[in-house]
Amino acid sequence: MIVDIHGHYTTAPQSLWDWRKRQAAGERPGPLKISDDQIRESLEGAQLKLQRERGTDVTFFSPRASTMEHHVGDASISLEWTRLSNDLIHRCCALYPKNFVPVCQLPQSPGVAPKESVGELLRCVKEMGFVGLNLNPDPSGGNWRDPPLTDRSWYPLYEMMVELDVPAMVHVSSSCNPNFHATGAHYINADTTAFMQFLTSELFKDFPTLRFVIPHGGGAVPYHWGRYRGLAQDMKRPPLKELLLKNVYFDTCVYHQPGIDLMLKVIPAENILFASEMVGAVRGIDPETGQYYDDTKRYIQASSISAADKQKIFEGNARRVYPRWKPV
Amino acid sequence: MIVDIHGHYTTAPQSLWDWRKRQAAGERPGPLKISDDQIRESLEGAQLKLQRERGTDVTFFSPRASTMEHHVGDASISLEWTRLSNDLIHRCCALYPKNFVPVCQLPQSPGVAPKESVGELLRCVKEMGFVGLNLNPDPSGGNWRDPPLTDRSWYPLYEMMVELDVPAMVHVSSSCNPNFHATGAHYINADTTAFMQFLTSELFKDFPTLRFVIPHGGGAVPYHWGRYRGLAQDMKRPPLKELLLKNVYFDTCVYHQPGIDLMLKVIPAENILFASEMVGAVRGIDPETGQYYDDTKRYIQASSISAADKQKIFEGNARRVYPRWKPV
Repeated sequence: MIVDIHGHYTTAPQSLWDWRKRQAAGERPGPLKISDDQIRESLEGAQLKLQRERGTDVTFFSPRASTMEHHVGDASISLEWTRLSNDLIHRCCALYPKNFVPVCQLPQSPGVAPKESVGELLRCVKEMGFVGLNLNPDPSGGNWRDPPLTDRSWYPLYEMMVELDVPAMVHVSSSCNPNFHATGAHYINADTTAFMQFLTSELFKDFPTLRFVIPHGGGAVPYHWGRYRGLAQDMKRPPLKELLLKNVYFDTCVYHQPGIDLMLKVIPAENILFASEMVGAVRGIDPETGQYYDDTKRYIQASSISAADKQKIFEGNARRVYPRWKPV
Repeated sequence: MIVDIHGHYTTAPQSLWDWRKRQAAGERPGPLKISDDQIRESLEGAQLKLQRERGTDVTFFSPRASTMEHHVGDASISLEWTRLSNDLIHRCCALYPKNFVPVCQLPQSPGVAPKESVGELLRCVKEMGFVGLNLNPDPSGGNWRDPPLTDRSWYPLYEMMVELDVPAMVHVSSSCNPNFHATGAHYINADTTAFMQFLTSELFKDFPTLRFVIPHGGGAVPYHWGRYRGLAQDMKRPPLKELLLKNVYFDTCVYHQPGIDLMLKVIPAENILFASEMVGAVRGIDPETGQYYDDTKRYIQASSISAADKQKIFEGNARRVYPRWKPV
């Protein structure tokens, strides 16, 4: 079985984005009207088609990351948009229970304590069977004004994650800082930033079973694995494997063979989860290979790691990291 | 000849840091008193010793990056500190002209137009023989409040760089944003950020001979080379080689063999310049190799690229990218 743990509903019907546009403009757009057929249509020609073509079985599916936009409006705007977005994910997964498994966004908002997100997490997991969450380390959208992930203000949320036994993918949304291109800089920077926050903290002493997935291949981390090992050593921290790798995982959203090969060389297979983020940041075909850049399954299959390690990456680790997921 | 294009005066005598501390506290510390012998002592047991031990010949030497601290005080504080720091680099290089070649910091300051840095650049290059500069893409120190490097406010500085034929290394200073660990996140993020700013701009159409070195192996860029090729393609930009690689270079401050191997695989040898940043961010010995993490010469030597490519990386590219440098 091949499990893609990182997919967003980027292809949702236009009426969703229209609703959001009106909401963000201060209107009260009323109930969202999207039929089951519209949902089917939005998925059949996109994620479902790509699943079939690429031979992946199931996608952990969450709202589009770039439109979480926690920096837009206040906490009540964020909550309304988040509930609506999560409900729509729930509908997708109910229509295609074999193909999609729900992962939620949180109603974060700049300057608002993370404990305010606990209720929506509970609702999604307990009432709708969500298996994980996306956690935005920068609700200010590229201005980085909120405390690091290791700040104690996050602890109530982490307590609930531990209680529910759900992992969080660390995933920013769009950037309203002109310095940061969203998918080319902000996403990757956030991944690197989160890893370093974890490295310098005692977070996993406080929460030994708390689990984070760092997407986009862990940002810059595997490429600079020597730097991170060396920084930890200079700081008299334990080796990274001991310090972080019981709690921190990386996905495989790295869109070329040499990048995947590097990751597979330096990160233990136990800490890597297959993902493509399709339909996501990069949609074209690589002229060097004739294949989609984000068809990451090919890179893993073409790599020289053992069949047992491939099985961990494609399926085994997902079962372990997302224990609430039970294949249909 | 082996040319290390990225070294900082991290080992300067304590009186320099004391001076700065007093200046930052609003005092007027008066003339800095450091003797030639103190300078010799600060270098003999550190950079010079490591050059000898590792078999490198010359280091392009600039003020410590983390203490540029453009966010401390106002523009006049920054200018005073910058002139003093550059003067000290000039003295180091005058004492050891075979070993060190001067590269300057700029008197940047948050919210202050980059054209205000032109005077100090001119002074360093014309009066003191500096061959390059460090340019901070975030003078606000982790708050990213100034315009991107592609903003027209930078153009007067770029015009002078072109006129003087000097390249800039894109290098942030310390972070006053608690989200960003300086050497583990802020440095690497800035590298990635700058690359993406260049990718989305017409900067090199406006300045066909302007040259930037992105340090720390280009941040996350080589690891995500497929992502960047794909993003450029989706945006209908020219291929990266054509769009950026006549103007953008990467150094080799990547502290493990697999990272260097990846870079050498995806980035043309013409765009890679040898560097170690010693004595810098990572100072320990890698227990996996028994060698210093930042002894990057070993990784390049151990790689499978051709002798001709190694020569480019160790020396040839430095001559081309830093044409004002003439070996003594």
